[in-house]
Amino acid sequence: HRILLLPGDGIGPEVVEAGCHVLDHLATATNFDISYETGLIGGAAIDATGVPMPAQTLEAARRADAVLLGAVGGPQWHGLPGDKRPEAGLLALRAALGVFANLRPIRVRPQAVEQSPIKREIAEGSDILFVRELTGGLYFGDKGTEGDAAYDVCRYSRTEIERVVRLAADAASSRRGRLTLVDKANVMETSRLWRAVTEEIIAQHYKNLDLEILLVDAATMHLLTRPRDFDVIVTENLFGDILTDEASVLTGSIGLIPSASLGATGAGLYEPVHGSAPDIAGQGKANPIGMIESIA
Amino acid sequence: HRILLLPGDGIGPEVVEAGCHVLDHLATATNFDISYETGLIGGAAIDATGVPMPAQTLEAARRADAVLLGAVGGPQWHGLPGDKRPEAGLLALRAALGVFANLRPIRVRPQAVEQSPIKREIAEGSDILFVRELTGGLYFGDKGTEGDAAYDVCRYSRTEIERVVRLAADAASSRRGRLTLVDKANVMETSRLWRAVTEEIIAQHYKNLDLEILLVDAATMHLLTRPRDFDVIVTENLFGDILTDEASVLTGSIGLIPSASLGATGAGLYEPVHGSAPDIAGQGKANPIGMIESIA
Ligand SMILES: CC(C)[C@H](C(=O)O)[C@@H](O)C(=O)O
Ligand SMILES: CC(C)[C@H](C(=O)O)[C@@H](O)C(=O)O
Repeated sequence: HRILLLPGDGIGPEVVEAGCHVLDHLATATNFDISYETGLIGGAAIDATGVPMPAQTLEAARRADAVLLGAVGGPQWHGLPGDKRPEAGLLALRAALGVFANLRPIRVRPQAVEQSPIKREIAEGSDILFVRELTGGLYFGDKGTEGDAAYDVCRYSRTEIERVVRLAADAASSRRGRLTLVDKANVMETSRLWRAVTEEIIAQHYKNLDLEILLVDAATMHLLTRPRDFDVIVTENLFGDILTDEASVLTGSIGLIPSASLGATGAGLYEPVHGSAPDIAGQGKANPIGMIESIA
Repeated sequence: HRILLLPGDGIGPEVVEAGCHVLDHLATATNFDISYETGLIGGAAIDATGVPMPAQTLEAARRADAVLLGAVGGPQWHGLPGDKRPEAGLLALRAALGVFANLRPIRVRPQAVEQSPIKREIAEGSDILFVRELTGGLYFGDKGTEGDAAYDVCRYSRTEIERVVRLAADAASSRRGRLTLVDKANVMETSRLWRAVTEEIIAQHYKNLDLEILLVDAATMHLLTRPRDFDVIVTENLFGDILTDEASVLTGSIGLIPSASLGATGAGLYEPVHGSAPDIAGQGKANPIGMIESIA
């Protein structure tokens, strides 16, 4: 099994290294055959090659059975234009692998919940699987400047919505049977399409699921006041980015949260939800649990 | 002083009525001369006239010295197309009045903080003024469908950013001297413009302010883990919508939070941050403090 390691920036290399110790141990213990390759991405790739996603890394990712990513980004690359920044490397990788569904399980564990700013009696027992659309929306739409103005386009096709909603509905069916769609259908046309497609799919193919629909502003409140009510939450790319960071606070530490980004076929991309945390990089104190859980 | 009352939907009429009792009392007690006019907006306007923002309401708003709004929206109008929904009336009103700055103060009061899911020791003492841009971004950009797809455009000009950032910086200067910009500059071109313009304005005209910049995903965490650190937060329309609802949870109830929407000239629009709350409408139990504070 070919695994591509992309340590990236900040605490990325530390957590990938810690993850590999676990993986090596498991491989030996279970006779699971692994070969590693290591590639450049993000700021590390910019420093070495001038671009955040070298062609070589993309080729290696396409060859791999799985890609393990640490984190990308840091203040030293903040001055660069949008398409030359470390994050552009991550976005290019997600697009190239076609990993449209980003699974982020937020499970509150008794060992860490005291660290959370949320009261224990609200947070404990929460177990939410976020399914964030990962290859569409504002992240990948047309964008640019026009005279004194700038613009970003959010675009979704029916097919892009359908595939990720089905994946989320399948996940909900094998869990507690509840699916929540988060959108902003009172303002956004793309949200109205998300809502129409989701209602259609659930009505036709997942009659046993309990579907709830929340506006994104309201969802930020419900996540904090009744987190145990949620089972699977599906949402578009930017809302998923925002809500998963918010919900991570329930657990007591974003350092604990793993993610898997999956497409229809090909390698999956596995990375902790935390970022590159430049403030603690290189000190050996980054929590590698998010990476280890991603490997699991 | 001409005040236009727009009760709207759900609990809107109840809270506007409660607000008027206070206003009447103050007017008498202080010899402040008030005349009221009442107009239709949102679902109530749709039911009576077929449109969420009758021309008559717009004219009355332009004539008024201040507009007091209750809330708009409700499940009975969810099936309507985007531009015919109750919310379209509110958006048309914001645009017509040119109220580009939506001020939402989030002040945690000892009397209510126990109601919050956030631990008292984290939330207490928080006093954040959100300045949300209100007449631009995804709310007012071009949007529509194209075959099987839908799109929304987020657009900001330098001028739109400048005026609201200056207003926020002025507010911060008269408070604790800290301004936080929230954006998603690692992904969005509009955010990169927000960041450039804000840094420029602060460096040139507000040298004494302490400027912090946060990505929107990170901001959702910082609001919950260190809310007391924030003084004034300025951000674009949709991020402001999302973050103010999230931050309202700190106070123990969104029913307590007022807002003022201001333009360069003309009438301001004053409304509680809570929505129409159809589930408790007509029962006389809606909390009118958000409305009363908006009047204050
Ligand atoms: C680094 C950034 C581009 C990325 C995103 O916004 O998707 C990160 O915040 C994440 O959630 O994986
Ligand atoms: C009703 C809706 C259009 C509105 C918004 O999104 O601006 C509301 O959520 C608000 O925050 O005032």
